[in-house]
Amino acid sequence: VRAKTVAMISTAVFVGSLLLKGPLLSSETGKDRVVRLAELEIDPAHLEHYKAALQEEIATSIRVEPGVLTLYAVSIKDHPTQIRLFEMYANAAAYETHLQSPHFKKYKSGTVGMVKSLKLLETEPILLGAK
Amino acid sequence: VRAKTVAMISTAVFVGSLLLKGPLLSSETGKDRVVRLAELEIDPAHLEHYKAALQEEIATSIRVEPGVLTLYAVSIKDHPTQIRLFEMYANAAAYETHLQSPHFKKYKSGTVGMVKSLKLLETEPILLGAK
Repeated sequence: VRAKTVAMISTAVFVGSLLLKGPLLSSETGKDRVVRLAELEIDPAHLEHYKAALQEEIATSIRVEPGVLTLYAVSIKDHPTQIRLFEMYANAAAYETHLQSPHFKKYKSGTVGMVKSLKLLETEPILLGAK
Repeated sequence: VRAKTVAMISTAVFVGSLLLKGPLLSSETGKDRVVRLAELEIDPAHLEHYKAALQEEIATSIRVEPGVLTLYAVSIKDHPTQIRLFEMYANAAAYETHLQSPHFKKYKSGTVGMVKSLKLLETEPILLGAK
């Protein structure tokens, strides 16, 4: 899955996207930005271990990787084993760097037996509005 | 759909969630935070009008509503009529205020004929990691 994702993302071009950020209304072209969605179903027997590994991976990535802008992890209400990730990277190179990082590899290999299904969705930003 | 969502969100309690924000590793409890996902399918005949209305709604909400923290809108790559929204509000009151705002009502009534399907997902944050 990882190799395929890298190949897919390498060809991704986000043209015409907009990024809105800051307390005042402002906009800038965020055409290099990579936004990925992930939909996971976790084995309920391993849910707590999985969430701990995910939290560690997110915290480390945000702290040490300049190109990892957001890693938002939520579960669907009343369906705690259904996890959704909203991931934003500065550009495709930052995303590839993330995939090769030791903390991501540790997370990936450490949780492979806990993940029942994984769906990765590449996206094209329409407007990324944030305070 | 809107009234039902308000009722659902009013009962949402996000206990034990974590919020990670800022360039240094730090965490705070974000238990009041409301994160909602929306999955929309747009009528292709109205896609450009829909996206313009959505962009206007997002830009206005971020600018004038203190409790609207992020409104991220993306389309699925190669499926431009499939829109996903990642919405973060400071708390349930901020979310309800947003639903009652004139700009949201204008967007909602103005795009109702363009939306083929809408799925709203309430969530419980696991970790909201951001720079």
